[in-house]
Amino acid sequence: MAALAAACVTSTSFAADVKTGRAKAVQCQACHGMDGLAKVPEAPNLAGQNEDYLVKALKDFRSGARQNEMMSVVAKPLSDADIANLAAFYHSLGPK
Amino acid sequence: MAALAAACVTSTSFAADVKTGRAKAVQCQACHGMDGLAKVPEAPNLAGQNEDYLVKALKDFRSGARQNEMMSVVAKPLSDADIANLAAFYHSLGPK
Repeated sequence: MAALAAACVTSTSFAADVKTGRAKAVQCQACHGMDGLAKVPEAPNLAGQNEDYLVKALKDFRSGARQNEMMSVVAKPLSDADIANLAAFYHSLGPK
Repeated sequence: MAALAAACVTSTSFAADVKTGRAKAVQCQACHGMDGLAKVPEAPNLAGQNEDYLVKALKDFRSGARQNEMMSVVAKPLSDADIANLAAFYHSLGPK
C-alpha cells in the first residue's frame, strides 16, 4: 500500500526506464550531452534535474505551451513513454 | 579586444553580481533553495545551471513568453539587473 501510494505521488515513475531513456537521449546529446551537462550555452544542464520538472517541460514543448526553436521540433513526436524514460535517464545522472 | 569580444558573447556577464543575486534570491529559496537544489518536486534545481539559460528563462517568464503559475508572478517585477544577478548567483553554485 505504501508502495502504491509512492507510485501515485510521482505519476511518471512506474513506467519510466532509465536504459530506454538513455538510448532515446542519443538525439538530445548534441545540446544536453549524454552526461546531462549542456554543450551549448543556451541549453540547460539536465543531470540530476527533478524528474517531474523534466516531464512537464517536455510535455509543454510537445503541446506548444512552451516554445523553443529546437525543443518545439524535437519534442513533437515524443510519446508519453519516451518522455517518462528521458526524464528518468537525465534525473539518474549527476547530483542526487 | 579579446576581452571585449568575450564580453559580447555572454551579454549578461559584465553587469552580473553574485552577492547581489544571493540577496535577491531570498525570495526564490522556498522553491529553489539557497543551495540551488529544489525544495518542491515541480521546481527545477538551479545550482550550476547555465547563466544564459537562466537569464532567458527569467526574461521569458517576465514577458509572458513562458508561463508558470508561480514564476509568471514573481518574475514580473524583476529588472534586467535583478535577472543578471540571480542568474550569476545560481550559476555560481554547485557543479562547474
